[in-house]
Amino acid sequence: MKGLTHVDEKGVKMVEVGHKREVFRRAVAKGRIRLKPETIELIKAGKTKKGNVIATAQIAGILAVKKTPELIPLCHPIPLTGVDISFEFGEDYIEATCEVRAFYKTGVEMEALTGVSVALLTIWDMVKAVEKDENGQYPFTRIEGIHVVEKVKGQALQ
Amino acid sequence: MKGLTHVDEKGVKMVEVGHKREVFRRAVAKGRIRLKPETIELIKAGKTKKGNVIATAQIAGILAVKKTPELIPLCHPIPLTGVDISFEFGEDYIEATCEVRAFYKTGVEMEALTGVSVALLTIWDMVKAVEKDENGQYPFTRIEGIHVVEKVKGQALQ
Amino acid sequence: MKGLTHVDEKGVKMVEVGHKREVFRRAVAKGRIRLKPETIELIKAGKTKKGNVIATAQIAGILAVKKTPELIPLCHPIPLTGVDISFEFGEDYIEATCEVRAFYKTGVEMEALTGVSVALLTIWDMVKAVEKDENGQYPFTRIEGIHVVEKVKGQALQ
Amino acid sequence: MKGLTHVDEKGVKMVEVGHKREVFRRAVAKGRIRLKPETIELIKAGKTKKGNVIATAQIAGILAVKKTPELIPLCHPIPLTGVDISFEFGEDYIEATCEVRAFYKTGVEMEALTGVSVALLTIWDMVKAVEKDENGQYPFTRIEGIHVVEKVKGQALQ
Amino acid sequence: MKGLTHVDEKGVKMVEVGHKREVFRRAVAKGRIRLKPETIELIKAGKTKKGNVIATAQIAGILAVKKTPELIPLCHPIPLTGVDISFEFGEDYIEATCEVRAFYKTGVEMEALTGVSVALLTIWDMVKAVEKDENGQYPFTRIEGIHVVEKVKGQALQ
Amino acid sequence: MKGLTHVDEKGVKMVEVGHKREVFRRAVAKGRIRLKPETIELIKAGKTKKGNVIATAQIAGILAVKKTPELIPLCHPIPLTGVDISFEFGEDYIEATCEVRAFYKTGVEMEALTGVSVALLTIWDMVKAVEKDENGQYPFTRIEGIHVVEKVKGQALQ
Repeated sequence: MKGLTHVDEKGVKMVEVGHKREVFRRAVAKGRIRLKPETIELIKAGKTKKGNVIATAQIAGILAVKKTPELIPLCHPIPLTGVDISFEFGEDYIEATCEVRAFYKTGVEMEALTGVSVALLTIWDMVKAVEKDENGQYPFTRIEGIHVVEKVKGQALQ
Repeated sequence: MKGLTHVDEKGVKMVEVGHKREVFRRAVAKGRIRLKPETIELIKAGKTKKGNVIATAQIAGILAVKKTPELIPLCHPIPLTGVDISFEFGEDYIEATCEVRAFYKTGVEMEALTGVSVALLTIWDMVKAVEKDENGQYPFTRIEGIHVVEKVKGQALQ
Repeated sequence: MKGLTHVDEKGVKMVEVGHKREVFRRAVAKGRIRLKPETIELIKAGKTKKGNVIATAQIAGILAVKKTPELIPLCHPIPLTGVDISFEFGEDYIEATCEVRAFYKTGVEMEALTGVSVALLTIWDMVKAVEKDENGQYPFTRIEGIHVVEKVKGQALQ
Repeated sequence: MKGLTHVDEKGVKMVEVGHKREVFRRAVAKGRIRLKPETIELIKAGKTKKGNVIATAQIAGILAVKKTPELIPLCHPIPLTGVDISFEFGEDYIEATCEVRAFYKTGVEMEALTGVSVALLTIWDMVKAVEKDENGQYPFTRIEGIHVVEKVKGQALQ
Repeated sequence: MKGLTHVDEKGVKMVEVGHKREVFRRAVAKGRIRLKPETIELIKAGKTKKGNVIATAQIAGILAVKKTPELIPLCHPIPLTGVDISFEFGEDYIEATCEVRAFYKTGVEMEALTGVSVALLTIWDMVKAVEKDENGQYPFTRIEGIHVVEKVKGQALQ
Repeated sequence: MKGLTHVDEKGVKMVEVGHKREVFRRAVAKGRIRLKPETIELIKAGKTKKGNVIATAQIAGILAVKKTPELIPLCHPIPLTGVDISFEFGEDYIEATCEVRAFYKTGVEMEALTGVSVALLTIWDMVKAVEKDENGQYPFTRIEGIHVVEKVKGQALQ
């Protein structure tokens, strides 16, 4: 029967991965931020001109991927070989996709999930002024559906 | 007309808040991680005995609140006065609530959202072994509904 | 006679600023990276389309401003109120300008200098492939003239 | 009756300090690393020439003071006004003293204790080669007696 | 004759380890915090119910192990494969034990010592209210006996 | 034709290095800070006695080398094997040289450039009091000529 590998009678630990094989690892995560359609239009307009909301989110996400073992207490430091973050626009949402790759002993899905989360939080931060209502509240804004699309282990790097 | 305050023709910036009043600020954010009911049972059982999945998520969330200006590029460093993170269990989800307070020139909703996000990511990390299917995928796990419940400005500290 | 305030017979210290007045502080620093004219053209072309080399440098610089007390051992943590980084293109260089503002007991010129330095290093990182010669060396690339343009203390915030 | 302020039925929290007065705070902590007398002689000799073991420990300690809220999960970020770390040599030990000052709502003894701890760990790191025995073990080296010498609140800055 | 490997006539350096073999490395460190017997009782009571003081110290210690090269200036970044921190209760002390493992070119005793130190500092932070006397001083609290129990190199991972 | 490897139609990315060979990598960077001759004399005098300005700059530079992937958004985390920073004095400048070595898939010139930059910024911070004129400005101080002296790939470690 499966149990919680990080937890035993002594509390929590960073589980030993020394015996695991170094193989190519890849994980893709996705998530969405729901925004008002007019906010989407402003970002798109900005994008045509400067691309800055999206560029900032992309860079924040890449930096956050590298910070994963500092943020998630029991994650191992992993020598990452590559990170891509991309964005797609819906009418009232932006979807972020983060792919992380490494040649190592343990998987990189937490890194991909962290990249998506911080990219979406950064978008939120940059559109606060337009998403807030007259009382300073956010009735519409919401981060949704952060999930792992695919986790691959041991395949050759394409 | 409202616009994107962080963005102008020169790109992005950390907007000036020097002229804003120092007042009491409070923000509450919530979000959920959907897990298999059996995972919830394991965490609850663990909780009775050791409380460690939840304790780890709580601590990771509090630390992440303090890291917000490092993670979200245009956030200001803020002298926080207090942070609470709590959790509620549903049949197939855990809901995290993060409240952040400060006496300062700018609001703390990004801090509360960051606390919730990293607390939920930490839960994910600790239940990976039980949430993964036989192919190493996560068909069920998902972070949902991260939103700001309330943002308060200028009220007295209770 | 003036001496080195950080150094005494016991070694180095973070000098006491508790007795200094909290006033508005502003510092502007500039610096240049010399690049091949064809690299400049590539960045400019990229800029029209996506602005990403410059956006990445701008964001890296803003984040570095916030990291100053972590990088420069004897700097005080300072509650910054605003940061702007902008760029100008010459035929064979890019000039970065960083302005930092705070309402505090000590000046922010180290923050502005750090922002300029990391913004220019980030540009370098992003143009490595085009700046390197056939032997993998950088005969042309060079960061020059990092200096404080202006340091202002006690004036009203504009 | 006194209880554990950081802990309640919901787990741990960063306790609210918003209602506390901003006053001058000062804390002094001390601790020792026991070393072989010959190691002490080597450091002293080095000190006359370059002072580098002690200088490195001093700088590492000052940087660690600033990192306290990142290391100790429930510590508040505090705008520190000054930090001093000094060292005294015994025949078979070095004693580190760290004084931290701030004008703020909460005390700085954890900052002083963290500064002492990291300064002593840094000394250890720099003398590993001379402290290890032929089996690579450390039969003598030991960090001892880390304590708070004095905690002062509300007195004028001297 | 042995000398200080980190120090030469040019000052300090991060010594080259590129020529050392990658082998399995393990280090165990221990240390104690002396507390009032009533504080120990409060933590134990809390432990039965929630385990939070100890859980917080454990997580802070694990995170600190990963921060070692950031805290100790001349330490190398090391790809850690596992970390365990555990605690034992005496009548008037808590003893922390930290084991760190890696497959790498250099040892991990500084990592184990850093984990113990920060775990003990975190306990201190969480019991401040009960350890302080009526004058806000800590006449009893003290961190003692931080030492390396065992350093192992080249044995197979168990 | 060469292009900007970090930038494509989707924005920026951390480029994949998984297919690159692990070989010995070495990079040397240099740069200068121009200072008033009297400041140079003060540092030299201090150096004879305590060496602290230079020691602080050296340590700050070594720590910054390790922080490179945190500062430069698209840099990979690299397991560094050694770092040296040294200084030479001219009549009105100090020149810093930083050498970084690793056995890895990608080069370390950004690490060497970051080490030089932060070492020079640290010198600036420590001589502020003597470099400023009566109006608090820095008419003379300037960081100049940061460049890569040599980048070596695949040679044996000496």
